[in-house]
Amino acid sequence: MNASEFRRRGKEMVDYVANYLEGIEGRQVYPDVEPGYLRPLIPAAAPQEPDTFEDIINDIEKIIMPGVTHWHSPYFFAYFPTASSYPAMLADMLCGAIGCIGFSWAASPACTELETVMMDWLGQMLELPEAFLAGKAGEGGGVIQGSASEATLMALLAARTKVIHQLQAESPELTQAAIMEKLVAYSSDQVVATLGTTTCCSFDNLLEVGPICNKEDVWLHIDAAYAGSAFICPEFRHLLNGVEFADSFNFNPHKWLLVNFDCSAMWVKKRADLTGAFRLDPTYLKHSHQDSGFITDYRHWQIPLGRRFRSLKMWFVFRMYGVKGLQSYIRKHVQLSHEFESLVRQDPRFEICAEVTLGLVCFRLKGSNKVNEALLQRINSAKKIHLVPCHLRDKFVLRFAICSRTVESAHVQVAWEHIKEMAADVLQAEME
Amino acid sequence: MNASEFRRRGKEMVDYVANYLEGIEGRQVYPDVEPGYLRPLIPAAAPQEPDTFEDIINDIEKIIMPGVTHWHSPYFFAYFPTASSYPAMLADMLCGAIGCIGFSWAASPACTELETVMMDWLGQMLELPEAFLAGKAGEGGGVIQGSASEATLMALLAARTKVIHQLQAESPELTQAAIMEKLVAYSSDQVVATLGTTTCCSFDNLLEVGPICNKEDVWLHIDAAYAGSAFICPEFRHLLNGVEFADSFNFNPHKWLLVNFDCSAMWVKKRADLTGAFRLDPTYLKHSHQDSGFITDYRHWQIPLGRRFRSLKMWFVFRMYGVKGLQSYIRKHVQLSHEFESLVRQDPRFEICAEVTLGLVCFRLKGSNKVNEALLQRINSAKKIHLVPCHLRDKFVLRFAICSRTVESAHVQVAWEHIKEMAADVLQAEME
Repeated sequence: MNASEFRRRGKEMVDYVANYLEGIEGRQVYPDVEPGYLRPLIPAAAPQEPDTFEDIINDIEKIIMPGVTHWHSPYFFAYFPTASSYPAMLADMLCGAIGCIGFSWAASPACTELETVMMDWLGQMLELPEAFLAGKAGEGGGVIQGSASEATLMALLAARTKVIHQLQAESPELTQAAIMEKLVAYSSDQVVATLGTTTCCSFDNLLEVGPICNKEDVWLHIDAAYAGSAFICPEFRHLLNGVEFADSFNFNPHKWLLVNFDCSAMWVKKRADLTGAFRLDPTYLKHSHQDSGFITDYRHWQIPLGRRFRSLKMWFVFRMYGVKGLQSYIRKHVQLSHEFESLVRQDPRFEICAEVTLGLVCFRLKGSNKVNEALLQRINSAKKIHLVPCHLRDKFVLRFAICSRTVESAHVQVAWEHIKEMAADVLQAEME
Repeated sequence: MNASEFRRRGKEMVDYVANYLEGIEGRQVYPDVEPGYLRPLIPAAAPQEPDTFEDIINDIEKIIMPGVTHWHSPYFFAYFPTASSYPAMLADMLCGAIGCIGFSWAASPACTELETVMMDWLGQMLELPEAFLAGKAGEGGGVIQGSASEATLMALLAARTKVIHQLQAESPELTQAAIMEKLVAYSSDQVVATLGTTTCCSFDNLLEVGPICNKEDVWLHIDAAYAGSAFICPEFRHLLNGVEFADSFNFNPHKWLLVNFDCSAMWVKKRADLTGAFRLDPTYLKHSHQDSGFITDYRHWQIPLGRRFRSLKMWFVFRMYGVKGLQSYIRKHVQLSHEFESLVRQDPRFEICAEVTLGLVCFRLKGSNKVNEALLQRINSAKKIHLVPCHLRDKFVLRFAICSRTVESAHVQVAWEHIKEMAADVLQAEME
């Protein structure tokens, strides 16, 4: 395929994408397929000679779409939101075309420098303490990781390396393994200090745990994967109070800030803590500026060597929405979750199981776990909406997460009417 | 931005991308900017109100492009190739639109199932032993990781977990830390068994190391990050002989197989070894099929929880090139590297420093490291082509890697003429 064919096919694909997203409400949110559905639909081996583009585009509707769970349907209320916006998609096209691998400053200076500045922009939007920002000469700074798991792993490894170095400096006879056997990582049942847990969006008390960590010289990592995006709104910023005690902090703009996956934003107060743990300097990656002290080689900040030009997505999204646009997006979701909450509260058969702070409502039928399991199963079998459950202590609970960029009050109302119908059926069946 | 504006802007972006790649040869391959160039060019904070798309697209040429190292220029001979093809870019657009997160089968069955089948297609193209394929009821199978580093880390962790479980089964009194202190990971100076090292594309002897690992029950992981793509050609397949002794194997289609970053292909013979080490089963990720034994939940195969629909890229590329198209692409690159090799060999001032097997030529001026460092510096300061060096034992060596999808004999000739000129200048300066 040459550039001129790409011009034609690329534009067809733009239309396909726009059609898909415009029409997504009309597709059944959860697919009908059974495990193993796909293999019989496609050849057992790659073709020797090229297929045509028409064949492929036809196969998307025939083979792929029947097996897709439509995460961006306004009837998708499962897990947590996953970001999807047109500006981010445009930026991703550009990212693919530039196709640089930004492991060092020299590998593509724009890739590294835009990332540092975008992480400062985002840090300011969150009113992060100055110590987390790179600025022109700060000791801290931000980096885009692929996921919150990677950010947490990096924080754990950096903390471990730091304490091993400290202890070995005091007692050089200690082996690394002997130290590691004694090391303890404290966590709650959701792991590390968390703002907005996945199960029910609860918040750890940073103002209690933070000073203790600082006093005992314990590395404090805070994960606000989902909730973090809300902190750009002044009325939710108080949930982040105590971040000043942390050594590292991360959240996922790829969840709720309209920056398509992957984009997990991580900040550290002392970038030397990260780069000290992961320095990698083979000759073929050295460049003339690297020892100047003024530049960033992001390969030292992460586990993989390679990295895409992901900050373009942030730049496009922040500029095309503006901070106010992003704030209203967050507020709309929070308002919709409260709307759903109040519908649930009006029905005496149901109960709300956790405080609704942001875009997640945990609810259930008053009664046994069994009846709630039956309700969920009935809902997800009907496939009109899609939910996932969680356990809160011993209770089986349904999670209703406001997810889609295009979800409106009308969809929430339809979803609630549907849930009530399913509940009536379940309760009826139970009586019989 | 709504769907109709996306239709317009998306098509403009398709044209921008096509123009960029068609005209890339006319851009200076390496940028002129100094560290810190970007920050003064953009505002200190995100805008409150939206910027226009015109502002952003204009800023790409004004702010981003001056700082880009053009990895897909035919004058880029640095590092190793990074895949870039139009079919992969089309697939990425679709992947962004579907925007599912494929951590479990239920999260989007098509995402999981296409990946399993594409990994089988690719495994067959490489003539991997049957044990590595998933097939309909195999114990092995493939997974897309983000990078070879992640694949290696997964292999190490899986190996470690496996041996800890084995030893604790034999001696339950042993603590994990006590075992870990005794564990040894053998590696060469390039880490793990490698086919096609980054420095000079050398090959470990699997037929020697493999049987020893099997006899001693040592996990053997093979990394062929760059070279692996070549094994789809029968004439290079012998380089993979011995893979039958391995427990896990990976290479990066995102390097040399036209599947844009990220796409690191990893296979294991026993998928239970991976999933045993990383099982993660909170309630909100459970689904009704998960214990059926017939399905794959890829979150157990990797460090991050989230994952994109990356197999679409493989599907588009394999189908639109066909196996034969991919083979000719590899062969063209190998032929160009031999062409460069023979140019170097014709000049008695130069020497070839490592056998040229695939697309990498390691060469230097006969003489001191200093003169070669001066040569490289002169080449990279002129910015007509871009190279990076390596050290082979004590020698400072220049690496000439065939990288771009569009590089032709003419570019190699121009590059060589330019290198000779720079060499003459350096040798002249040395005489003075």
